[in-house]
Amino acid sequence: MDNLIKSFERIRRQIKAYLYVLGMINWDSATEAPKGCFEYRGKQVGVISELLHQTLTSKEYIDCVNSLYKRIEDLEPIFAHEIFETKKKLDKILKIPAYEYVDYYILLSSSQEEWIKAKNNNDFGDFIPTLEKIVEYKRRFAKYLETDNLKDYDVLLDDYEPGFTTKEYDEFFYLLKQELLPLFKQVSKTKLEFDSSFNNLVYSHQKQKEFCEYLQDVFCFDKNRGLMKESEHPFTTSFSTNDVRFTVKYHEDDFTSSIFSAIHELGHAIYAQQINPKLDDTFSGEGASIGFHESQSRLFENMIGRSKIFWETHFPKLQELFPDQLRDVTVLDYYKLINKSKPSLIRIEADELSYPFHIMLRYDIEKGLINGDYEVKDLEKIWNESFEKYFGIKVDNPSLGVLQDMHWSSGMFGYFPTYALGSAYAAQIYKYMEKELDIKRILSSGKNLEINNWLKEKIHKYGSTIYPKELITLITNEDFNPRYYINYLKDKYIDLYGLK
Amino acid sequence: MDNLIKSFERIRRQIKAYLYVLGMINWDSATEAPKGCFEYRGKQVGVISELLHQTLTSKEYIDCVNSLYKRIEDLEPIFAHEIFETKKKLDKILKIPAYEYVDYYILLSSSQEEWIKAKNNNDFGDFIPTLEKIVEYKRRFAKYLETDNLKDYDVLLDDYEPGFTTKEYDEFFYLLKQELLPLFKQVSKTKLEFDSSFNNLVYSHQKQKEFCEYLQDVFCFDKNRGLMKESEHPFTTSFSTNDVRFTVKYHEDDFTSSIFSAIHELGHAIYAQQINPKLDDTFSGEGASIGFHESQSRLFENMIGRSKIFWETHFPKLQELFPDQLRDVTVLDYYKLINKSKPSLIRIEADELSYPFHIMLRYDIEKGLINGDYEVKDLEKIWNESFEKYFGIKVDNPSLGVLQDMHWSSGMFGYFPTYALGSAYAAQIYKYMEKELDIKRILSSGKNLEINNWLKEKIHKYGSTIYPKELITLITNEDFNPRYYINYLKDKYIDLYGLK
Repeated sequence: MDNLIKSFERIRRQIKAYLYVLGMINWDSATEAPKGCFEYRGKQVGVISELLHQTLTSKEYIDCVNSLYKRIEDLEPIFAHEIFETKKKLDKILKIPAYEYVDYYILLSSSQEEWIKAKNNNDFGDFIPTLEKIVEYKRRFAKYLETDNLKDYDVLLDDYEPGFTTKEYDEFFYLLKQELLPLFKQVSKTKLEFDSSFNNLVYSHQKQKEFCEYLQDVFCFDKNRGLMKESEHPFTTSFSTNDVRFTVKYHEDDFTSSIFSAIHELGHAIYAQQINPKLDDTFSGEGASIGFHESQSRLFENMIGRSKIFWETHFPKLQELFPDQLRDVTVLDYYKLINKSKPSLIRIEADELSYPFHIMLRYDIEKGLINGDYEVKDLEKIWNESFEKYFGIKVDNPSLGVLQDMHWSSGMFGYFPTYALGSAYAAQIYKYMEKELDIKRILSSGKNLEINNWLKEKIHKYGSTIYPKELITLITNEDFNPRYYINYLKDKYIDLYGLK
Repeated sequence: MDNLIKSFERIRRQIKAYLYVLGMINWDSATEAPKGCFEYRGKQVGVISELLHQTLTSKEYIDCVNSLYKRIEDLEPIFAHEIFETKKKLDKILKIPAYEYVDYYILLSSSQEEWIKAKNNNDFGDFIPTLEKIVEYKRRFAKYLETDNLKDYDVLLDDYEPGFTTKEYDEFFYLLKQELLPLFKQVSKTKLEFDSSFNNLVYSHQKQKEFCEYLQDVFCFDKNRGLMKESEHPFTTSFSTNDVRFTVKYHEDDFTSSIFSAIHELGHAIYAQQINPKLDDTFSGEGASIGFHESQSRLFENMIGRSKIFWETHFPKLQELFPDQLRDVTVLDYYKLINKSKPSLIRIEADELSYPFHIMLRYDIEKGLINGDYEVKDLEKIWNESFEKYFGIKVDNPSLGVLQDMHWSSGMFGYFPTYALGSAYAAQIYKYMEKELDIKRILSSGKNLEINNWLKEKIHKYGSTIYPKELITLITNEDFNPRYYINYLKDKYIDLYGLK
């Protein structure tokens, strides 16, 4: 048994080293690599990826994981959980015929380019052949991987949020539709009165960066164990609990965009810094799930970052950095600006209230595609009709509609719903946190350390050693309950818009 | 044969991918990695280095290289050269018993720290036990690797500059001593009259960086295929001919330091960008030797960068960036500042004329140590006596004397002499280039592209497919000849100091 564990640890070390260097190359590519590097780099990434795949599918590793799995009862619980998950992932690789796997990855290596081309041409038709192939693979892979409990789309959902199937998501989205759609429609028709002229001024890149550096301190990001940089699309990456990096994108004509993307990424980054460092050498040193990671970024971005109390404390700092633009602006006007809701075409620019409807739309489409109810060729029509139903807007431009997101071009089916789930987790966790912490006092103090500590003890330290459904129950003493999310949005928007 | 070549190419690809990712991690470590990353990073580097070593010493690879070596006559010349060099390197690895190799690297993993400690304590005695062990390994390794032609120190010299042994270096340094030491002594006693007060002002980091960006354009560094960044010690690294990166260090109280380190690194960087890109996938896609790489950086830094004509063109730009500091400064005063010679303790801060004596001193000591004439325990005394002989300065502080460089603590014996050789190559190449190019016109034009093109055709494109001795003859139609270097320095300093 000891030798078995040693073998596993040795191969795991190798797998993790490959993932580490691939991550480092990705980080470099997204943040500073010169244009000319990519051809040669692609070859090196190819070699390392192949070595990784060889290691993951080596007889030695498969035998080792299978042997440990047979004796899972004898393992200590955290390690048993890791072996259970590893076995699950390994089976996924082994159940798909190698040649199909390879063909699929070859397809993906050019599919993003195809999508960008179609988006630039504003013609969904250009992307149909590629997307049809991707969906075909996804349907077939789902068949290979199906179990007694998981079929079709459920198989793919399990990759991102274990325990959440179409059953759970259907209920969740049904409730959101029932409870929030009427509110959203009502808000859409109501005008929010405030002076928003300061939003149309130029805010310098450098000063925005200074404010984001200030935010790092407010949210107690440990700069000795991470760093902030710039990239085209903000993201967070974690090399170990002691090396967590995130990026921001600055727009001089949209000054709140960098602020909220920084706070969002800080939510991810604090999570990654606060995982138990003992898990660094294991496969469990990451967030509990995609949805849970998103819950932490949403809690930072929305519950904290879009609250009045937060800006009563920090708006003066913003005014200090931008005296010309913000001297005469009230906190209330700023609060209204950052929370205003209105129907809009683009998901990533959507406000808190309209956001779940963007997700719902995608969830319905993905489910229909994978289960065989929809075909790719009809997607633009389906998208535009659904969009009009939810948002009351006619989409006459596929690059602002069905072509707007990169997920499907990368084969990421089952990912979108976790975005909505994350917000719902966040509201439930926040409500519970309010019972245990004097959040108002903490936010007024200017440093959020006590919140980080609470999240660390309740969530972060566990890494992915606990499944999301168990974790939310462990934190809040009840099952996942989307009512908190609904009530949170109702309270906030009824108050903001002075409804009823 | 075809299969043999394919096998070699496959394993080479793997070796190069490992080297690539290790290089990427080094780059990150030197430029931006957060402090906290290093412990975990060390483990990942360990895993990848082990995989690299396994690959380099795998039976398959050894058999493959040996089989190709046996049929080297049948290979096309460039590939034959690569196989010849690969076989040489492989033999070096195989001739040293694995356990000694491992023990040596374990020693090196802490030896730099020991050196830093001794340097900080200003006590050479602290470093003696570690350095004794390193020298012992180096002596033993030299014995393992000796051939009929190469013994003792010559074995180590061959690692950095193939073809140059103590025979060549002895002649070279003897000549320098004969010809230049009297000049240096005379210059040391002569006062250079000029107003140097502008050198003691503060020059902002940001403006220095702007000037270094300007220099990138002057030297026609292709920013699409590389980038400039900051680090504690300036260096250049090449991931491929299309991805070449270098760093600069800015000191606000020493404004020419960043300028000349940028020009120096640009010499390395242009070399790396101009190698034939077909060599990227081979082991020949680097400079011809360490000395040759240094020749290009010295040619840029000294022959071009410290010339009057260069600054007649670019000093106005410097004045534009620093109007308060440089408004009333003449180009001649600036030229005198950047070329002034005087005895000084630290090699890396030395001027062009005194520089070779710093190297000579180290060459003598290394040769004596490896050949068994000197012992480590006597090194401080030997250093201080030699130093006084060359520079007329008593060293009373080992951290500014025998402990100043990191090379020996990293086991780099045989590297130092290439620094002097590089300057001598540079002078010989420059003299020949002057016959073919109107350098004055090119430097006055503000862009050095024609010089780069000439260097590309004569030197850069070959990568390391040609040995240094052959290459210098190919370029200049004669053997390596240090007289050019001696004459260059004589002409320059006799003129500058108004001697004779």
